[in-house]
Amino acid sequence: MSTVATKQDPTVLSARLQHAAEKAAGADIDALLISPGSDLGYLIGVNGESFERLSCLVLPAAGSTASPVLVVPKLEELGYSEVPARELGLEIVTWVDGQDPHGIVADLLRRDGATPSRVGVADVMPALHTLPLRTALPETEQVLANPVLRALRMRKDPAEIGALREAGAAIDRVHARMGEFLRVGRTEAEVGADISRAILEEGHAEAEFVIVGSGPNGASPHHALSDRVIREGDVVVVDIGGPMPSGYNSDCTRTYSLGEPRDSDVRDTYEVLHAAQRAAVERVRPGATPAEVDAAAREPIAAAGFGDYFVHRTGHGIGLDVHEEPYIMGGNEIALEPGMAFSIEPGIYQQGHWGARIEDIVVVTEHGVESVNNQPHELVVLPT
Amino acid sequence: MSTVATKQDPTVLSARLQHAAEKAAGADIDALLISPGSDLGYLIGVNGESFERLSCLVLPAAGSTASPVLVVPKLEELGYSEVPARELGLEIVTWVDGQDPHGIVADLLRRDGATPSRVGVADVMPALHTLPLRTALPETEQVLANPVLRALRMRKDPAEIGALREAGAAIDRVHARMGEFLRVGRTEAEVGADISRAILEEGHAEAEFVIVGSGPNGASPHHALSDRVIREGDVVVVDIGGPMPSGYNSDCTRTYSLGEPRDSDVRDTYEVLHAAQRAAVERVRPGATPAEVDAAAREPIAAAGFGDYFVHRTGHGIGLDVHEEPYIMGGNEIALEPGMAFSIEPGIYQQGHWGARIEDIVVVTEHGVESVNNQPHELVVLPT
Repeated sequence: MSTVATKQDPTVLSARLQHAAEKAAGADIDALLISPGSDLGYLIGVNGESFERLSCLVLPAAGSTASPVLVVPKLEELGYSEVPARELGLEIVTWVDGQDPHGIVADLLRRDGATPSRVGVADVMPALHTLPLRTALPETEQVLANPVLRALRMRKDPAEIGALREAGAAIDRVHARMGEFLRVGRTEAEVGADISRAILEEGHAEAEFVIVGSGPNGASPHHALSDRVIREGDVVVVDIGGPMPSGYNSDCTRTYSLGEPRDSDVRDTYEVLHAAQRAAVERVRPGATPAEVDAAAREPIAAAGFGDYFVHRTGHGIGLDVHEEPYIMGGNEIALEPGMAFSIEPGIYQQGHWGARIEDIVVVTEHGVESVNNQPHELVVLPT
Repeated sequence: MSTVATKQDPTVLSARLQHAAEKAAGADIDALLISPGSDLGYLIGVNGESFERLSCLVLPAAGSTASPVLVVPKLEELGYSEVPARELGLEIVTWVDGQDPHGIVADLLRRDGATPSRVGVADVMPALHTLPLRTALPETEQVLANPVLRALRMRKDPAEIGALREAGAAIDRVHARMGEFLRVGRTEAEVGADISRAILEEGHAEAEFVIVGSGPNGASPHHALSDRVIREGDVVVVDIGGPMPSGYNSDCTRTYSLGEPRDSDVRDTYEVLHAAQRAAVERVRPGATPAEVDAAAREPIAAAGFGDYFVHRTGHGIGLDVHEEPYIMGGNEIALEPGMAFSIEPGIYQQGHWGARIEDIVVVTEHGVESVNNQPHELVVLPT
């Protein structure tokens, strides 16, 4: 059972529930139906984790007289014991095998006497529940709850920013220890196992992802780990992170070299990447758009002739999910606001040879930007 | 990227695809839409793992002239490189950010010139994709694909049984080493960390679940790990398992005592449980029903006066998922068939004091039953 640490503060959660209910009303949605996942954790402080058996927060839009209800299997009720239900005015309704939980939710939605015309369903709700809920409420349109929740979750409050800072410092400590793990003669998998352990030792709840892309593997942005043995002169991309006990995630990439890089183009190309990453970070401020930040990273790389080797978006939002809004990419023309948090992670990938990526998590402040990752951005040359 | 090991055998996968297409036709479903998860792994040999970006197998029902198509984000295509697409007659269609993947799926479904009247959607498909697919195909009814796939996946073929045997032997080796880990003075969490390591050492791909329920914690079937220090005389429930590289899962519970059990009722109660578990296993044969197997476990426990302390179903199917059909519980009146595999795991829980559970994974054979777990079923007394 994964929980959010700043988490069960009733004042914070109560404000979020109210805010979500208001946004739902503004979107002509009668109620939100939120199944286990980070949206649930955001709203009530516990993510939950059931799949087969329906667990669902029924949150009426502002203006309804009905109170929010958490429908959970009796067997899984204990997993929600940290939810401050009383302070939140949250009713808990349990059900046991043999009962029809989708019918229970439908009945709750009809408490006012009227059938809701639209409900907002959590992104993560599996078809196993979305379809029976539709059958139980045939006249109710299902839309995604995401636009309502995205608007809230994108703007982090000070406690959330604090949790991201803590996550950033923890993953920085792992990168600072990289010389202990990343050595010539070891496989990526061996290095990765040590990094996983260090991620936990430095305070994470889970080592959710560990990418060690050495030599040509570094040129494949989706490579994770392999049995390739690391050799002298290899350039190695290390992209690591995971959730802290708070529920908030770290995500940070640095690029290493085992002794001087073998390929003669590494030093100059890396300088282009380094400047591009810095330019993109410096472009972040309230009012700037994700598209502008993406362009700030992309233009110097293209100008140096490497445009075709930067094959992904510049970044992604981060918080209770490793990937969430806002996405830092061309076409995203929202105005950045204080409290938004995302990665800036351009890369240059020389297929078949080597790759490099530099990634920080940054937060938009009142007047500019703060990086929660602060290890040096230079190519880190480790002894061989 | 999680893959299934017996897995990319084109003959096996081809037969499964054909069988699923026939079952779909028999259920008046025009096509199955299968997103990443164990159903996808079962059908094409790779589970996939995308969430935000749609990946979807479009499998036309038997009788259609259209071939199956795997729609995947270009960025994630490499993750499907082990799918024997050519041998399976599987077309791969990639899409990039900016394209509308739900529209691509809708167009594929209309290739015959007609709009499908019903599609079967994978249980796990998130609302993030289920809802846009409905919008893209407003005249098409969505139903769950599960009844079609469940019928296939419940009946394991010899390679799958082999994979379950291998998983059973691996988790048996971990239980055989329990004396190394489970000692007086250590916390459940410390013991659990060692067990996780051993689960990997003995050949698993992941230590997916580790329950160490000591003393009163053993009486809570959903307890995982805590900082409780294990003491002399404690009874400890150890329920562990996870996927092998084949994708097939282990799941096995044994109950231990640190020296002689402190509570004087443990020995006699345990004997009731032991007999009940054996009776249920012996009840398994082709033609028996899950309800009968459940009753075989439940009756001796009730007869001894512990009926109220056995608070869960007797078992669950297992394979590519830890929990799948068939569920071994009252009301499930299907006839067991050779190749079905499931747990038999009665427990007795003395709230506030101690608990015990014995769990084996068994397979229905032509004439009876085979257990893939074969560590002794007695209460294991470890030295203090």
